[in-house]
Amino acid sequence: MALLLVLFLANTILPIFSEGSPQAADPPLIHHQIHLLRPQSGAGGSHVPGLSCLSWRLGVETNNIIGWRTIPQDCEGYVGHYMLGHQYRLDSKAVTYEALLYAQSLKLPNDGKNVWVFDVDETSLSNLPYYAHHGFGVEPYNATLFNKWVMEGKAPALPESLKLYSKLLSLGIKAVFLTGRPEDQRSATATNLKKVGYRTWEKLILKQPSETGTTAVVYKSNARKKLEENGYRIIGNIGDQWSDLLGTNTGNRTFKLPDPMYYLS
Amino acid sequence: MALLLVLFLANTILPIFSEGSPQAADPPLIHHQIHLLRPQSGAGGSHVPGLSCLSWRLGVETNNIIGWRTIPQDCEGYVGHYMLGHQYRLDSKAVTYEALLYAQSLKLPNDGKNVWVFDVDETSLSNLPYYAHHGFGVEPYNATLFNKWVMEGKAPALPESLKLYSKLLSLGIKAVFLTGRPEDQRSATATNLKKVGYRTWEKLILKQPSETGTTAVVYKSNARKKLEENGYRIIGNIGDQWSDLLGTNTGNRTFKLPDPMYYLS
Repeated sequence: MALLLVLFLANTILPIFSEGSPQAADPPLIHHQIHLLRPQSGAGGSHVPGLSCLSWRLGVETNNIIGWRTIPQDCEGYVGHYMLGHQYRLDSKAVTYEALLYAQSLKLPNDGKNVWVFDVDETSLSNLPYYAHHGFGVEPYNATLFNKWVMEGKAPALPESLKLYSKLLSLGIKAVFLTGRPEDQRSATATNLKKVGYRTWEKLILKQPSETGTTAVVYKSNARKKLEENGYRIIGNIGDQWSDLLGTNTGNRTFKLPDPMYYLS
Repeated sequence: MALLLVLFLANTILPIFSEGSPQAADPPLIHHQIHLLRPQSGAGGSHVPGLSCLSWRLGVETNNIIGWRTIPQDCEGYVGHYMLGHQYRLDSKAVTYEALLYAQSLKLPNDGKNVWVFDVDETSLSNLPYYAHHGFGVEPYNATLFNKWVMEGKAPALPESLKLYSKLLSLGIKAVFLTGRPEDQRSATATNLKKVGYRTWEKLILKQPSETGTTAVVYKSNARKKLEENGYRIIGNIGDQWSDLLGTNTGNRTFKLPDPMYYLS
């Protein structure tokens, strides 16, 4: 929550810097804790003439725009403001609100076999502090740097997801965390999850060395299939990537959280 | 195109009327051809405290918010401005642009069996002139009035969809129109499609009397299955409803056009 406050403050300050004039005459007087919107140049991204970043984001969220490696360069400022601002939080809340309404509407057998699948990155934990320093997706993915960040175990919770998690537990639905993070990040991930409030879970499933190179859709479908074979009922499934929600054994209902920063197949 | 111009003009005039003050002191001097944003009261809809209409729309477009009968009453003004304004067009363009890029990237056998499935309402034809007079989805669906509108055959094309259609034809991909409209609207639908520029098609599939009561997902899945059984390759599939794109035999890739006005299961 402290981080969110910082993000909020950062967001109220950021509009001082016009997106279009990165080389303002006066140097900024305020040191940003989180992020200084960078010039519209440099690594990654691409120029798309006439692009509406709002349309691009909608296209991404609806899975119309797929397989992209970096966000359009012209949308770095847009995505940065979105992620640090109110709308990302509001959009996330609208999703988890629907998820909760749905969960509350169910009459579930009380046999301990009801589970809800949570993705980890940008679903349970937020890597926004990392991405804020890496152009909000305009820089190509850097596995070395990102893994270093993961191993620090400092990712905050997504506040709305954490609330959903707690309410689902109180409805007798257990959490299964299913992540594309590799098995050797189990300890860092578990510690991070616990530290920010995800106190307990039925399973924490990470990608095994034998599954390296498998797409997220296939890896996650297989993992969910195993869950069902073991008698679990996947009541719901929430993730920020369509690859969390497509494939097989997707669960009774799926929920797509926003993520305009990166795309995983 | 003429209609779009009227819509555009209407949109530039509409902001004169504050959404929050439907009983403005001075009567409006301009007669609207298309729509006068109505007071936030009356038929249908529901009040949702703290609702962000932008989040609601994203929730709808991502299929997180499902099974709704009317748009939230508080979002009538928002949806109206969206539909009559630039963003709807831009959002549609972003979708059809991706669809075209995809189609252009393919190497297809030249055997006349490549088809693209187009939904009709809010995909190929726009019922915006109708919905503009019926609260943009805040009024519950009225089959009698809507069918009367359909039989008039006056729906304009969605300009971006029509462009996509023409370009797909030039790539050797034939159009299949697959609609939930009933068989007795075949003539009106065919005439309307031709009049606005959809000159030719491989098939125009309407809902048969025997299929009444079947959900859109099931009806459309069965129709696409039959297409594939008859040797067609469904290269792409475009619709404004998730029920156009989910189910079986969905095609090699699907494209979701925006529609914040109504939901079909």
